[in-house]
Amino acid sequence: MTTARRCDGFTFSGLTCGIKKNGLKDLGLIYSEVPAAVAGVFTRNRVQAAPVLLDKQRIGRGLCQAVIVNSGNANCCTGEQGLADAASMARAAAQALGVAEDQVLVASTGVIGEPLPVAKIAAAAPRLAAELSSDGAMRFAEAIMTTDTVPKCIIRRAAIDGREVTLVGVAKGTGMIRPDMATMLAFVCTDAVATADTLTPMLQGACNRSFNCITVDGDTSTNDTVLLLANGCCGVRIDHADARDRFRQVLDQVLQALARALVKDGEGATKLVEIRVAGAANDHDARQVAETVAHSNLVKTALFGEDANWGRIMAAVGRAGVAMRPEQVDIHFGDIMLVQGGRGCGRTFEAAATTVMRQDEFSITIDLHLGRGNAQVLTCDFSYDYVKINADYRT
Amino acid sequence: MTTARRCDGFTFSGLTCGIKKNGLKDLGLIYSEVPAAVAGVFTRNRVQAAPVLLDKQRIGRGLCQAVIVNSGNANCCTGEQGLADAASMARAAAQALGVAEDQVLVASTGVIGEPLPVAKIAAAAPRLAAELSSDGAMRFAEAIMTTDTVPKCIIRRAAIDGREVTLVGVAKGTGMIRPDMATMLAFVCTDAVATADTLTPMLQGACNRSFNCITVDGDTSTNDTVLLLANGCCGVRIDHADARDRFRQVLDQVLQALARALVKDGEGATKLVEIRVAGAANDHDARQVAETVAHSNLVKTALFGEDANWGRIMAAVGRAGVAMRPEQVDIHFGDIMLVQGGRGCGRTFEAAATTVMRQDEFSITIDLHLGRGNAQVLTCDFSYDYVKINADYRT
Repeated sequence: MTTARRCDGFTFSGLTCGIKKNGLKDLGLIYSEVPAAVAGVFTRNRVQAAPVLLDKQRIGRGLCQAVIVNSGNANCCTGEQGLADAASMARAAAQALGVAEDQVLVASTGVIGEPLPVAKIAAAAPRLAAELSSDGAMRFAEAIMTTDTVPKCIIRRAAIDGREVTLVGVAKGTGMIRPDMATMLAFVCTDAVATADTLTPMLQGACNRSFNCITVDGDTSTNDTVLLLANGCCGVRIDHADARDRFRQVLDQVLQALARALVKDGEGATKLVEIRVAGAANDHDARQVAETVAHSNLVKTALFGEDANWGRIMAAVGRAGVAMRPEQVDIHFGDIMLVQGGRGCGRTFEAAATTVMRQDEFSITIDLHLGRGNAQVLTCDFSYDYVKINADYRT
Repeated sequence: MTTARRCDGFTFSGLTCGIKKNGLKDLGLIYSEVPAAVAGVFTRNRVQAAPVLLDKQRIGRGLCQAVIVNSGNANCCTGEQGLADAASMARAAAQALGVAEDQVLVASTGVIGEPLPVAKIAAAAPRLAAELSSDGAMRFAEAIMTTDTVPKCIIRRAAIDGREVTLVGVAKGTGMIRPDMATMLAFVCTDAVATADTLTPMLQGACNRSFNCITVDGDTSTNDTVLLLANGCCGVRIDHADARDRFRQVLDQVLQALARALVKDGEGATKLVEIRVAGAANDHDARQVAETVAHSNLVKTALFGEDANWGRIMAAVGRAGVAMRPEQVDIHFGDIMLVQGGRGCGRTFEAAATTVMRQDEFSITIDLHLGRGNAQVLTCDFSYDYVKINADYRT
């Protein structure tokens, strides 16, 4: 399988440099044999980590040849030293690879507020470069994990103008996830030919349709970064409407698959639930309702308990701050109608809904019967393990 | 102690009528020997339970002689039948007491979406009336509990114009608690003389300074109701500025004590934490920051884990959507400075902060150093038990 995750002109590596206490991989590298066009989407949090600040400076030029990423330390709230450390980290990669320093981007994820052990990163950089491999994407995916339980790496191929284009996407979650722009780290590499100007709006749109439609715990990270690199090695140009449409479609697929993988691996999650809202006055209202339900701790604990407690969904809909008439609301769990016209359909339907809830993945559909607005948000349940993972995170 | 919870002209009772499966008290009554002036504050949720709808109709007249309250069933999302049931419940109390039906208010709390077993309530009403007692407030407090672990009943006395006025407040929590108007049931009885017109703005203000400054889980109930009854039996008039100020002060004390008791008994809560924000551009911004931190699941799980993980606080401040400069933020846990100018003060201070966190109650102060805006919100930690209580609630 790993051999299938190749993308022309890109190589990847991941290794242990000693940032994580548990000895797992904590340093990863993406390298393009030629400078790639690059687009980025970054956290909207006003507290932004040093690597985010550095990337935002550098990405304006539109070219990137390498991305170095560490896990185990977020290099956030680390002041001037943090900025210097982020630059040092990029420099170490640039020197090991022999590329221009300002074409190296960086990302960090992990604990906030501790100094980045940049010496460990610098010491490991030559080996990181030496171990680059065209089938190294999974090792890179492992190296950027924090509380993730599985690496997330997706490959999609598309025919554009009769020729094959490849996209490889890698992401990590899994806490501080809510729909507020790029709530995690994700890197997508493609061998298509495109400029930063073409890629940027595509990436923004694709993020809105994927990472911005998921929630784990309603917190937004300080380090969220999504980068899209296009090195042109397959020679297929994304320079006309048809090619752009096709590329956009595949990019959406990659980001949506990664987004889904992030929620499925949400901290302590045992279930993946799609909250679908229909019949809202408009899409904005639908989104508000979907997010309010998807974020509700009471709903999420009921999902964990496999309790078809639709009253909590009604209560969340009612506090979403949008137009709704309780007596018009229908709610389905999967195909089972549980609420019709704002009232429960009775024990038989609740029992059937409980069967739906025993599945690992299912949908909850809320129809407000007011208008044509609709929205979907992916969420997960809220388990003992979420509390355990986050109460003990730094110990 | 219970004898101290008397308020002239008011009697209270609480008993088991069979709504709760566990045989605990589930029906309570407040009775005033004369019609009392009444003010009410109700949930802002658009999904509103039948008793809320009924009370909002009746309270306009400004007079109330009895309040009948059940726990174990919210009588919400129950349609026309629910409205009829709420009226029947009031009628049962009116008949048992021999008072006008439209001077009886009702409240319900418990599971949403199940028919109210109104026959059980009607059958128990005569006994409920017969057991009324001037020292029955604690039994009433027990009868309105759901997942509360302790009854909440507060008494305060104040001298106004040289004479004694009494206020007795009773409340129940404990999930679906967030600052969005009167997020639970609370009833305050006073023997002062006042009109509904005087009481209403006082109650609204007092709610804003108490129940609207607390959070347990960020959900807002469909049944939230706060009623203030003034029967005039002590003869002290709240009809001039000095009396109003003094009364307002005591009313604030009662509601704030109840609010504090609600958070302390929040579902699964082991700690009561005051989030204090200072130095925001304005009070509104300060409130946004305080609420964002107070609601953050990552912050709340860290509180449970006694982990001084200030990075999560910085991240929450940064996503609160208000003006802030990360490099100006100071954070204290109790008296221990943990963050200065956006950076951690180091391990020694973290160790000291951990000692602060071992206490049952403490404060976290966040100073943005931007302006004069400030706000306080009470929150609790997020434990395994919150998940357990809410995953299993209906089973």
